[in-house]
Amino acid sequence: MPQKTRTRVPRTPSPTDRRESRQELLPIDLPKPKLREGRSLPESLRRRKTVREISDKKLSLQMVSNLLWAACGVNRPRGPFGTPGITAASASNSQEIDVYVAVVDGVYRFDAHHHRLLPVVAGDLRSMAIGRGQKDMVTSAPIQLLYIADIHKLSHTSGFQEPGLQDPDVQKSYFCVDTGLIAGNVYLFAASQGLATWFHNCDKIGLARKLNLRADQRVLFGQTVGYPERT
Amino acid sequence: MPQKTRTRVPRTPSPTDRRESRQELLPIDLPKPKLREGRSLPESLRRRKTVREISDKKLSLQMVSNLLWAACGVNRPRGPFGTPGITAASASNSQEIDVYVAVVDGVYRFDAHHHRLLPVVAGDLRSMAIGRGQKDMVTSAPIQLLYIADIHKLSHTSGFQEPGLQDPDVQKSYFCVDTGLIAGNVYLFAASQGLATWFHNCDKIGLARKLNLRADQRVLFGQTVGYPERT
Repeated sequence: MPQKTRTRVPRTPSPTDRRESRQELLPIDLPKPKLREGRSLPESLRRRKTVREISDKKLSLQMVSNLLWAACGVNRPRGPFGTPGITAASASNSQEIDVYVAVVDGVYRFDAHHHRLLPVVAGDLRSMAIGRGQKDMVTSAPIQLLYIADIHKLSHTSGFQEPGLQDPDVQKSYFCVDTGLIAGNVYLFAASQGLATWFHNCDKIGLARKLNLRADQRVLFGQTVGYPERT
Repeated sequence: MPQKTRTRVPRTPSPTDRRESRQELLPIDLPKPKLREGRSLPESLRRRKTVREISDKKLSLQMVSNLLWAACGVNRPRGPFGTPGITAASASNSQEIDVYVAVVDGVYRFDAHHHRLLPVVAGDLRSMAIGRGQKDMVTSAPIQLLYIADIHKLSHTSGFQEPGLQDPDVQKSYFCVDTGLIAGNVYLFAASQGLATWFHNCDKIGLARKLNLRADQRVLFGQTVGYPERT
């Protein structure tokens, strides 16, 4: 990914901001996922663990492609209710969790259906992916995944309609479970590839502002991914 | 597992009920998990999907053992904060999600640390593992996993202490994510073994009463597991 970085002065974002900041980044078509190597499922389960000591070594674009496909990529063109199926289940196949990818040059949104990264905002926001209560966990890991629920997708699913999809309390239980389903794939992918990963809180308020989110989007959690620090 | 079944007349449970009903079932020491066979992680991810058409064919005790180990079994004796590590991450390693296993003869709780099933209540409660809004999904699948949060474990973790662990709203986000992390393992295990699985709502109120849960336990979701129905 491009290395361009810029220091940005925090201020209230506007639609103009959104347009401008997006223009600094370009969409990235990810290479086709290639997951022929790696450990078996049982071996990945045996090695599944949280690792917080992560080096700053970059992941190749191919590895990023593989990681995101494993997380919630399309695994069959015809899934439930006529939409493509992905590697992680979701309530009524609403696929309401967007995975944002924070790297050194900016934040992208993973577009699973086209297997590409779409620009969201330029600038290094990786430190905001760690919760305020965990700021002693300084990390220069190359990638922070950000889990962001799109309530509109949940309440307007083309899948099975049920009252819970319109109930904020039920919605919350759904989008949190659905985040765990993706994060679990990331944990096992990391275990299979010798990567390190850690699921954690993030700066929800700060990120919602920086990412110019709509009122019906919710920043939920972050997940650091990289190579383990050699100690 | 034993085949003893009994029709029980619903009524308000008492501590005597709990003792009596437990006495009808015996603990089951699960055989050591053997996951040498099955598909790779990438192939399991490719095959990951929700399958609701499930036959009544039973799973062997070895398969049940493998399933539960994959879900949230111990994968290392020394995990974070001095307790055994399991295949699914949890908030501050509190391991607050208990997996209950509803089969034809009754409901057991999976004791991951000793890899055994502990009796909870006799009687076939599998139909209560399906939500009231999904009662048209009649199933005679052999196993219903029930995800039940133990708030006490979350608020009294021996792991990293942070204010969110005492906040009901944050607790909910944690125990729902942690449910997804386990359910994701079940989805991939099923894909690897040619099993079928489906994650769904359940009869929370009915089950809380039948299972004699404490006030600080929460019935969350169910997950059906079995062999795919041959159509």
